[in-house]
Amino acid sequence: MKQLTDFDGVFARGVEIGLKAKGGKDLAYIYVPNAVATAAVFTQNKCCGANISYTKKAMKTNVLKAIIVNAGNANAATGEQGAKNCKRMAQLAAQKLGLRPSEVGVASTGIIGKQLDMEKVEAGIEKLFEDCHAKDAESASQAILTTDLVKKHAFAEAKIGKKTIGVAGIAKGSGMIEPNMATMLGFLVTNADVPQELLQEWLKEAVDKSFNMMSVDTDTSTSDMVVLLATGEYQFATRNHVEILEFKRILLEVCIELAKKVARDGEGATKLIEVQVTGAATHTEARRIAKSIINSPLVKTAVHGSDPNWGRLLMAVGKTPDIRINQDSLSFAFGAVTVFKDGEPTAFDKQEAVAALSGTDVIIHVDCGMSTGQAVAWGCDLTKGYIDINVDYN
Amino acid sequence: MKQLTDFDGVFARGVEIGLKAKGGKDLAYIYVPNAVATAAVFTQNKCCGANISYTKKAMKTNVLKAIIVNAGNANAATGEQGAKNCKRMAQLAAQKLGLRPSEVGVASTGIIGKQLDMEKVEAGIEKLFEDCHAKDAESASQAILTTDLVKKHAFAEAKIGKKTIGVAGIAKGSGMIEPNMATMLGFLVTNADVPQELLQEWLKEAVDKSFNMMSVDTDTSTSDMVVLLATGEYQFATRNHVEILEFKRILLEVCIELAKKVARDGEGATKLIEVQVTGAATHTEARRIAKSIINSPLVKTAVHGSDPNWGRLLMAVGKTPDIRINQDSLSFAFGAVTVFKDGEPTAFDKQEAVAALSGTDVIIHVDCGMSTGQAVAWGCDLTKGYIDINVDYN
Repeated sequence: MKQLTDFDGVFARGVEIGLKAKGGKDLAYIYVPNAVATAAVFTQNKCCGANISYTKKAMKTNVLKAIIVNAGNANAATGEQGAKNCKRMAQLAAQKLGLRPSEVGVASTGIIGKQLDMEKVEAGIEKLFEDCHAKDAESASQAILTTDLVKKHAFAEAKIGKKTIGVAGIAKGSGMIEPNMATMLGFLVTNADVPQELLQEWLKEAVDKSFNMMSVDTDTSTSDMVVLLATGEYQFATRNHVEILEFKRILLEVCIELAKKVARDGEGATKLIEVQVTGAATHTEARRIAKSIINSPLVKTAVHGSDPNWGRLLMAVGKTPDIRINQDSLSFAFGAVTVFKDGEPTAFDKQEAVAALSGTDVIIHVDCGMSTGQAVAWGCDLTKGYIDINVDYN
Repeated sequence: MKQLTDFDGVFARGVEIGLKAKGGKDLAYIYVPNAVATAAVFTQNKCCGANISYTKKAMKTNVLKAIIVNAGNANAATGEQGAKNCKRMAQLAAQKLGLRPSEVGVASTGIIGKQLDMEKVEAGIEKLFEDCHAKDAESASQAILTTDLVKKHAFAEAKIGKKTIGVAGIAKGSGMIEPNMATMLGFLVTNADVPQELLQEWLKEAVDKSFNMMSVDTDTSTSDMVVLLATGEYQFATRNHVEILEFKRILLEVCIELAKKVARDGEGATKLIEVQVTGAATHTEARRIAKSIINSPLVKTAVHGSDPNWGRLLMAVGKTPDIRINQDSLSFAFGAVTVFKDGEPTAFDKQEAVAALSGTDVIIHVDCGMSTGQAVAWGCDLTKGYIDINVDYN
């Protein structure tokens, strides 16, 4: 699979500087010296980290040319000192790259409420920028992880107009994941030349259908962000609706791929759950229903146990706030096995239903039978592994 | 402790009729032949059980004089046959007690989506009403349980005017518990003489501050109800504000006691968590913040591990929808140990904080430092026991 750094003019690297208690790479940069536009969405958590405030402000006046990311410490709830430390990270990185500090975004993920060890960070920045033009997306994708087990890359490309335009991204997720209008950490690059306002609009749209429809545990991080940088290498007709749709498609494809990878690697997860809702009164109501199901601990534990307990789907649909529902037109399926049809249980084969729930990819389909509203959400099963990871996280 | 049946004119009994897969008592009645008023609140789940629709309708025209309750089967998502079976239960019980069917409420709890075994139910009703005037609240409180480990009683009394007026109740809970405007099963009796409309208003108010502020797992049952029957034995001045407050106080006391017992006995729970929110912009916002914390799986697992990870409190406060918050005036305490004060971490003694989290009763205090809005919510820790119980529930 192609990576971020396979685009011309995109550089990335990750190193270990000792911020993670368990060791491993924990500081990275993504550097696009000639970026023509940057789009970003941020966490809606009202108690957000210092880096969120900093990066939002920087983007008001500048196209970001680089992002510096640390794992192991979220630099959230750290007061004025935290804000100073965040600014210092941007300043040091900017110095190394010959940029203004406001051209550098800062992302931090890890424990909340501890000050960054700035001695480590300063020495770490020296080490990281020993090579400012690294083509090492692998090490960067490793350095942004916390409790994640696997690195998360995605890539898509299409011929748009006369050029092959691509989008590539990396992400981290694992726990405290219900993005809700923003997301975990995701860093995307495209080689397209897209005006700032359009890039922002399209990223928001893609995030709404991908990261914002994914939940590991209903908890919304203080530090979520997704950033998309455009290198500007290739132009396409950004007023041609066909070409726009093609670009939106590959952008969405990459975002969904990363969202699914985050859900699949949710803390303790053994299964990726995809909930498809059709026939709802509106798309908005379909989204609410899909999120209600993907977030239900009783649905998540039933999937973990491969138990075709569709009564819990009924419960989760019924508890969804502010939706219209007609119980007599509701249908449920696990994979291809319909277990409830038009408001009545079917005489399904239990072994087939158990089989549909036993793989690492489980599809739940809910048809509301009312109108054309639809949505897809992603999540994971709830297991003892989640408890093990979270009883003592430091 | 006094029980329901210690009031004159209140009868209750539970027997085993074979509806629970694991055996045990599973059919009960509560019978108040001279009830003068009945109040009730029901689940807001849009896919509610047949018994909810039936009992709501019955209460429109009648004061309920009796309730028949089965465990082991929720009679939900059971279509027309389910509605017929529910009606049949009421008819048979009414016959035995010499009541109209619409004077009998029906409650059902257990698995969703299976038809009741009516042969067992009919034979069971014969057995149950062999004694129509039993004073056996113990067996009734046992028969309404599902995965609950312990029976749940509560009682309070006060001298109001010249009479000693009391409220007694029993409840079941355990899983699929976030009542949200209604609750699990709760059956209360008072010996007071209170007009129907006032009884309904006061019950709703008490439920809003008790059962509706309690959550085991965010999942809202299809079958929740709380019913309060008044025997009418003792009158008090229901237009005297002091006497009203005294009655409201004992009613709330019983509801909170039962709610806490349900939370403490939540599926897999080892600890009762009480979240106290003060200083919020409004009471409504305080309720939302308290519920957000009590429902956060990351807060619940941290409490399970006695880990004073207050960053998760910050996260849960910050993710609460539609609230105003000022991070600089936020403070957190575990028991008496303040860990975060006016937006800054304190130099707390970690051992003391761990100790405050290590008992079976954990108090989390969040002071928003903004205004006078306050609320209390109850819940429990999230453990491997919850997973064990729910991977295969049949």
